[in-house]
Amino acid sequence: MTRRVLVASRNAKKLNELRRILDEAGIAGIEIVGLNDVAPYDEAPETGATFEENALAKARDGFAATGLPCVADDSGIAVDALNGMPGVLSARWAGKHGDDTANNILLLAQLNDVPDDRRGAQFVSACALVAEGVEEVVRGEWPGTIGRKPVGDGGFGYDPLFTPEGETRTSAELTPAEKDAASHRGRALRELLPTLAALADN
Amino acid sequence: MTRRVLVASRNAKKLNELRRILDEAGIAGIEIVGLNDVAPYDEAPETGATFEENALAKARDGFAATGLPCVADDSGIAVDALNGMPGVLSARWAGKHGDDTANNILLLAQLNDVPDDRRGAQFVSACALVAEGVEEVVRGEWPGTIGRKPVGDGGFGYDPLFTPEGETRTSAELTPAEKDAASHRGRALRELLPTLAALADN
Repeated sequence: MTRRVLVASRNAKKLNELRRILDEAGIAGIEIVGLNDVAPYDEAPETGATFEENALAKARDGFAATGLPCVADDSGIAVDALNGMPGVLSARWAGKHGDDTANNILLLAQLNDVPDDRRGAQFVSACALVAEGVEEVVRGEWPGTIGRKPVGDGGFGYDPLFTPEGETRTSAELTPAEKDAASHRGRALRELLPTLAALADN
Repeated sequence: MTRRVLVASRNAKKLNELRRILDEAGIAGIEIVGLNDVAPYDEAPETGATFEENALAKARDGFAATGLPCVADDSGIAVDALNGMPGVLSARWAGKHGDDTANNILLLAQLNDVPDDRRGAQFVSACALVAEGVEEVVRGEWPGTIGRKPVGDGGFGYDPLFTPEGETRTSAELTPAEKDAASHRGRALRELLPTLAALADN
């Protein structure tokens, strides 16, 4: 029999990403459902000071509301020259939630005078898994640098500005499969596989 | 006889601030001049990672170009919830140098979901003094909190958003004398008094 696991997201890409990672790991017996597949519940605002805090709060909410094991993430970009910001404010850096273009323009302007050798950054994802008797929070990082103009049409968020370490392309130029294999969220989700496998076995 | 000291600034308020601080300390024999009073020279861009680095670079430039003992500052606001940013980028936080209104609007928007107990901030000033055989860099901090809307018409920069510790008014509501007595730059400049006094005696 299959075990339903809630991913606290309405983003089909995120649901499919976890499905692919479970498949690749050969973990059967888990059915991934999203927030659109369960009865609506009050979702706490993301006002934590850390990715981990936000991911854990979301996963606790989802488990408490549905009784299903719940996976939640909070992700963003940490820029060295901004002391790790935009960080938890990545999605609303320019002031309005989810305006990728404004966020990219602002970040480039802020870094205009920052020389090439100080343009390091990491994409960061914290993923939490909350189930009966389980609270796990893991972190994945994807190191790289911030360029001087947007390049590439794929991905979303800060992808057009970010060149992963060892790459010449931005993360907006990688194929989805390449991004999956390397990305911060993929790295974090794979850390949760042992616990997810144990849930599937129960 | 008087000793000329260059303040690496075109801002008359900054020049007068140091004049007042020298007067209050009873240090005579120093004539403060600004960048408008000396022959123009190439000023290095402020691209350092720290206030100290920028202040020292400016003071070295001024001394090298004029032979006068040179005082320079770099100042800004360090917001706890932004890991100490805007920091050295304070004057160009919204992307354009010196647009106080845009900077204030952006900072308030970024902190919109940050609760009252995490709105701490410090105004920070690093001041450097470079003269023959002298390189000194000092730091002054002025702790307080960031409000939820601009209040007050005085001061400049982030003053309308900043309520100093122990105050109910913002720093834009303080009188110039009150601000002088408490502010980050005043604190830093007073740290330089012993060295300035020694220069005056020579």
